Amino acid sequence: MSNTYDIANDLERAVRESDEFTQLKEAHKAVESDPAAQQMFANFRQVQMSLQEKQMNGEQISEDEAQKAQQQFQLVQQNQEVSALMAAEQKMSVLISDLNRIITKPLEDLYGNPDNNEQ
Amino acid sequence: MSNTYDIANDLERAVRESDEFTQLKEAHKAVESDPAAQQMFANFRQVQMSLQEKQMNGEQISEDEAQKAQQQFQLVQQNQEVSALMAAEQKMSVLISDLNRIITKPLEDLYGNPDNNEQ
Repeated sequence: MSNTYDIANDLERAVRESDEFTQLKEAHKAVESDPAAQQMFANFRQVQMSLQEKQMNGEQISEDEAQKAQQQFQLVQQNQEVSALMAAEQKMSVLISDLNRIITKPLEDLYGNPDNNEQ
Repeated sequence: MSNTYDIANDLERAVRESDEFTQLKEAHKAVESDPAAQQMFANFRQVQMSLQEKQMNGEQISEDEAQKAQQQFQLVQQNQEVSALMAAEQKMSVLISDLNRIITKPLEDLYGNPDNNEQ
């Protein structure tokens, strides 16, 4: 048992030292040091979360809301710092998904496709 | 980068050899080799999933449905094989949650409480 946790801690250190995390930290810092970019990103995130919440609650997203979110997405993409942060978050997300898929492979082997099972 | 994936593969092996996974495999096998237990468990899981789906879609769960699920839960708990499998799944779920929390700690440090952030 302690072995599993020991290796998880090794993996945590590797994630912390990974290119993905280093780039994410730098991108995050760049946005934080630019109040306009920070505000823009905070607004964007808030709109995204409110839409996600609606989706999760099975509420309809109006055409107006979808269009507004799309416009805001295009706007934030034009800000170099915010765009870099979003790209870095995307890469980090891929890494974490990969790691999760790897470590839950024993469950996948036992149950078949994990998408059809709750763990 | 390859280092991260190498360690993830080590962790996958440790998960596969863990007490939690060994017990889960055995409990799974015991249920599979008992058609009555298997059917009971499949029915229970189906009811659970349909309720979860309703919750995720923001649909109301009727008192009748909740009561039926509760009765079925009490029924399956009385079957030794099914009860053991559910306990083993719970332990496995705790292990996987722990591992996920450990490896995403760098993100928690960067963003604050991960419950307030999407990755």
